[in-house]
Amino acid sequence: MIKVGIIGATGYTGIELLRLLTPRADVEICVITSRELQGVRVQDHFPNLRGHLDLPFSAPDSQQLNQCDVVFYATPHAVAMHTVPALLDSGVRVIDLSADFRIQDIALWEQWYKTSHSCPELVKDAVYGLPEVQREQIRQAALVAVPGCYPTAIQLGFIPLLEQGLVSSDRLIADAKSGVSGAGRKAVEDYLLCEATESIKAYGVSGHRHHPEICQGLNLVSESAVKLTFTPHLVPMVRGILATLYAPVKPGLSVTAKQLQSIFEDGYAGEPFVDVLPAGVLPATRDVKGSNKCEISVTYSTDTDTVVVLSAVDNLVKGASGQAVQNMNIMFGLQETTGLEGIALLP
Amino acid sequence: MIKVGIIGATGYTGIELLRLLTPRADVEICVITSRELQGVRVQDHFPNLRGHLDLPFSAPDSQQLNQCDVVFYATPHAVAMHTVPALLDSGVRVIDLSADFRIQDIALWEQWYKTSHSCPELVKDAVYGLPEVQREQIRQAALVAVPGCYPTAIQLGFIPLLEQGLVSSDRLIADAKSGVSGAGRKAVEDYLLCEATESIKAYGVSGHRHHPEICQGLNLVSESAVKLTFTPHLVPMVRGILATLYAPVKPGLSVTAKQLQSIFEDGYAGEPFVDVLPAGVLPATRDVKGSNKCEISVTYSTDTDTVVVLSAVDNLVKGASGQAVQNMNIMFGLQETTGLEGIALLP
Amino acid sequence: MIKVGIIGATGYTGIELLRLLTPRADVEICVITSRELQGVRVQDHFPNLRGHLDLPFSAPDSQQLNQCDVVFYATPHAVAMHTVPALLDSGVRVIDLSADFRIQDIALWEQWYKTSHSCPELVKDAVYGLPEVQREQIRQAALVAVPGCYPTAIQLGFIPLLEQGLVSSDRLIADAKSGVSGAGRKAVEDYLLCEATESIKAYGVSGHRHHPEICQGLNLVSESAVKLTFTPHLVPMVRGILATLYAPVKPGLSVTAKQLQSIFEDGYAGEPFVDVLPAGVLPATRDVKGSNKCEISVTYSTDTDTVVVLSAVDNLVKGASGQAVQNMNIMFGLQETTGLEGIALLP
Amino acid sequence: MIKVGIIGATGYTGIELLRLLTPRADVEICVITSRELQGVRVQDHFPNLRGHLDLPFSAPDSQQLNQCDVVFYATPHAVAMHTVPALLDSGVRVIDLSADFRIQDIALWEQWYKTSHSCPELVKDAVYGLPEVQREQIRQAALVAVPGCYPTAIQLGFIPLLEQGLVSSDRLIADAKSGVSGAGRKAVEDYLLCEATESIKAYGVSGHRHHPEICQGLNLVSESAVKLTFTPHLVPMVRGILATLYAPVKPGLSVTAKQLQSIFEDGYAGEPFVDVLPAGVLPATRDVKGSNKCEISVTYSTDTDTVVVLSAVDNLVKGASGQAVQNMNIMFGLQETTGLEGIALLP
Repeated sequence: MIKVGIIGATGYTGIELLRLLTPRADVEICVITSRELQGVRVQDHFPNLRGHLDLPFSAPDSQQLNQCDVVFYATPHAVAMHTVPALLDSGVRVIDLSADFRIQDIALWEQWYKTSHSCPELVKDAVYGLPEVQREQIRQAALVAVPGCYPTAIQLGFIPLLEQGLVSSDRLIADAKSGVSGAGRKAVEDYLLCEATESIKAYGVSGHRHHPEICQGLNLVSESAVKLTFTPHLVPMVRGILATLYAPVKPGLSVTAKQLQSIFEDGYAGEPFVDVLPAGVLPATRDVKGSNKCEISVTYSTDTDTVVVLSAVDNLVKGASGQAVQNMNIMFGLQETTGLEGIALLP
Repeated sequence: MIKVGIIGATGYTGIELLRLLTPRADVEICVITSRELQGVRVQDHFPNLRGHLDLPFSAPDSQQLNQCDVVFYATPHAVAMHTVPALLDSGVRVIDLSADFRIQDIALWEQWYKTSHSCPELVKDAVYGLPEVQREQIRQAALVAVPGCYPTAIQLGFIPLLEQGLVSSDRLIADAKSGVSGAGRKAVEDYLLCEATESIKAYGVSGHRHHPEICQGLNLVSESAVKLTFTPHLVPMVRGILATLYAPVKPGLSVTAKQLQSIFEDGYAGEPFVDVLPAGVLPATRDVKGSNKCEISVTYSTDTDTVVVLSAVDNLVKGASGQAVQNMNIMFGLQETTGLEGIALLP
Repeated sequence: MIKVGIIGATGYTGIELLRLLTPRADVEICVITSRELQGVRVQDHFPNLRGHLDLPFSAPDSQQLNQCDVVFYATPHAVAMHTVPALLDSGVRVIDLSADFRIQDIALWEQWYKTSHSCPELVKDAVYGLPEVQREQIRQAALVAVPGCYPTAIQLGFIPLLEQGLVSSDRLIADAKSGVSGAGRKAVEDYLLCEATESIKAYGVSGHRHHPEICQGLNLVSESAVKLTFTPHLVPMVRGILATLYAPVKPGLSVTAKQLQSIFEDGYAGEPFVDVLPAGVLPATRDVKGSNKCEISVTYSTDTDTVVVLSAVDNLVKGASGQAVQNMNIMFGLQETTGLEGIALLP
Repeated sequence: MIKVGIIGATGYTGIELLRLLTPRADVEICVITSRELQGVRVQDHFPNLRGHLDLPFSAPDSQQLNQCDVVFYATPHAVAMHTVPALLDSGVRVIDLSADFRIQDIALWEQWYKTSHSCPELVKDAVYGLPEVQREQIRQAALVAVPGCYPTAIQLGFIPLLEQGLVSSDRLIADAKSGVSGAGRKAVEDYLLCEATESIKAYGVSGHRHHPEICQGLNLVSESAVKLTFTPHLVPMVRGILATLYAPVKPGLSVTAKQLQSIFEDGYAGEPFVDVLPAGVLPATRDVKGSNKCEISVTYSTDTDTVVVLSAVDNLVKGASGQAVQNMNIMFGLQETTGLEGIALLP
């Protein structure tokens, strides 16, 4: 029985953690903290948990956290870093869904997140929790930084191409589309139904925090330095990210659609949560809604000698809480797919 | 291991059956039929099942059906009645999600469904599969008629009031709102996204097939004859039914909100899938999305001396496939909640 | 040329006023105030007005307001009452879209709006701006209180029945469904896309501010006192209200569907913005999206001897800004339909 | 008074033509044809037109078409070509919203539209109705081929870059996102609300009919041959296209964001329906919903030395019927903006 604590469980990634962990017989949710909701029963706040979870929210400084085997942070950025060191000292393992430990270059992190990092010395020991790349390191990790939603979809789409050295790494384009839940459960005018529905727009074109995270991850597998144009879009739906990725074939190389298909199928053979679709089948975000899968298709545009990859995830599952649980499973030596085999809700 | 067959599994109730049954260790899905898709792999047709179910669609007359312990019909109306008799003769138990065996008055059924019933003699032995009312009969049933989606939400809301004789049974109003999946997966212009989104309308005001089914069920528990105005509405969302029910308190009686709350809480005490909300809490359909729960609240309008009940279900789960599985669990002596404890997907 | 001022034009009713008034050759928009946006160009705040309106927001105390022929208040409740008296003293006519002058019973108003009224003496001279009832009074009014969105749809649906004395006025039910824009442009968690989409719920069942306003209006045309159960619902769409109204036929009276149809057609003959649909046709809110029409159908439920009326408006047009402009047209002796003949945007 | 006929007015572009033309005092809609709806009153079929248009649908071969000054075809592809020659012979001018006369290379057209062209000799005289490029030719045109929706948004976004020779024309990428109304009003399963809502997907990756049309148009203004990767996506909304365009700066050239902004502002100076947004402002499709505008922003990605253009239109207005009316205005010597100055409906 793994004793679990969750810090900041009132947002969408928090409730998704509860949906995934509550039914498990091998997990005991011991403590859930929330500054505002201290004392309130979790099931009174999240109506979908009525009858499933009988536990009140605790104060953020609950001593029960020290008794846990693992603590998840589902907090905004720049919160976890203040209390993670003490938890680690108590021997608790930590899975952080925020960005605090994702970026190895501290100065770069501080520039994008506009604050000083309070424990930069921990960052180098944090493991970036993308199991398809870091599975072995995750097993032993005391501190896992769960990748962001866009970075998950985009890295999984580009990695096989870069590993094979097939494409020019300095001309990558990621045109990504996200549902509104990616913005979290904040009362902000832009995300009101009346503002966000029945419309699509790009945002963050001049720079997005996930840009350095994506490049850091891709540089790990690329021979030459990665340069990326990243255009995030807001789509009028709740869940889902679709990343449409464009990579020009290296001058002098020639590829075929069949080769590309094999590279992806081979590259992800055995991966339980990366599903390379058969040639000619394209992913839709609804096919992964509520599931931990990343669906990928690859096509080749002869017109411009460009590889086009489509990569779809549920931003709250494989893009956040599902991936966090996948990391926990690996860290504790469980079957990696435990509790993550739910079928997407369709329609 | 229960051997299961599914007839007509290409619509929304069919895919929902597959979502609920595929993960179960105590159920073996042996045969899924479809006239159009014979030979196609199920997971190629339903992308959310990729990797979960390795089975092709069979022809509708598959002899494998006879080897099943139970066969579900997820067919349009007036289909099941043609082959159910032979299956029953082979000793297969049948759970019919269509309307063929719901209405005891054959003439009434034929009037609403505009065709002759091909096996009227079987109707009287069919059990109406609303477990909260018919649990004992369901245990032994060879043939279960799963209630319609509106009838489930509406009956569960009115029953405690009628059982107690608190309200005038001849002035009931059910103002019901349904998501578009209630119309099934038919390529009909009215249900195109561009026709159905961003709008609400009533329909079937002059008569709806669920009207006689609702009245039949309510008359079972009411001392005096039920008369009902039923107004269904189409809501721009995929899943969910919210029934807003109005029942005038009987002349001469007086009730309080507190009494009403107790009547519902007592009436549904121990029911695993009827959740009477605390006083002051109102249901939203999203709180039951993907779950088998019916959430109910009861309030009292002093202005007009009227009880107002709100009843919410997921039309594809408690209103169809989940309830069908609940019936199967009862019929085969399993824990009634097996495979039905999934938490609603929120947001 | 009518000189117009608009106070508080940053919400949805404000922008809708601008959409309706900007194209008019007979109206000059002289001043638009906003505390937060003072100095900002209106077209920079509302992208749909780019190129249509070259005017900055002014401070709320702009002296230009006194130079206007008419000033619209598109403010939250309990704001207009503080400055309306001075404007009226300056000879400016006022059209208030908020609730400040709608309720004649000051104590009742103060109970519902939870504040003291600052100019109760003005309320009795304010004209309730429902043109179908108060057209003559509106012509001469210095101060018009524009009806709320629910009250508009519900009153127009019940009025012909009550005028004819056909129904029991003490058992009325209004089951009303509204799009999310009815909640205004406030950054409130409940109205986030991720909270409000793909779900329907009732709210305000224990009491809603529009209840006394509706009853006040209906009592004007009813012989006997009106008692009403009013259940508002939140629907996952931007615009539109559909009110489903239930009124029991008076004991001893008998009616036919044909009579009811005639009563409504005769009652609204000549009304430019009330469209009684042909028998058998039911309204959908999308049919009035962006238009100033109220579409009404009437049917008779023989089962329970109840008249069922369906009444649809766009809550931001006939339910707010369009009706405000209709009032302005009447007050200034213009053709009542001027600038309000736009066709609903479909799909 | 311009006498107008509309052929095939039962789809979304047809009803949008009616919304735009019905209110005009300088246009008389004389005949609207529909094979299926012959004899039905238009306002009974399109509820938003009730009270606005009193005309029945005529048979497709109505002789009244010959009396018109101009006839619009709002028909599926490969319909107009059969009757356009006779209308032109009668002296009627024709504005075709379908693809029949868009592609000058007949073999290419026949390959994409999978049928023989019945009047190839007319194609070379047809004018491609993109006013920003072909305004002078449109004035005299007897036959105008209205551009497709994607081609309109994409050409307007790329043209200034290609005219200036700034970008490598052989590495263009158009990642385009469309609302569902782009698929027309066909009862097809894929476009059901339950299939298309709450999801995004790419389609037509292996080839889309608009690809040759876009390239033909861009080649007119490009020095060197255009090569384009075009990825259309289906977005869960009704109206709107957002095209995100990527063009690599030519090797050896250097550009700045300021230069790019000037190039677009100068390039579209005086264009009534192309709105180049200020630097830093990005378009959203809702800002042009119901309006004839194309909103464009341009940014420069230094990382990959790529120009990123965002171009937004309402696919049914500037992408179809609005542009058709704009062509009519030009052809008949009217003010180009007549009847097209409607403000977008927001929210």
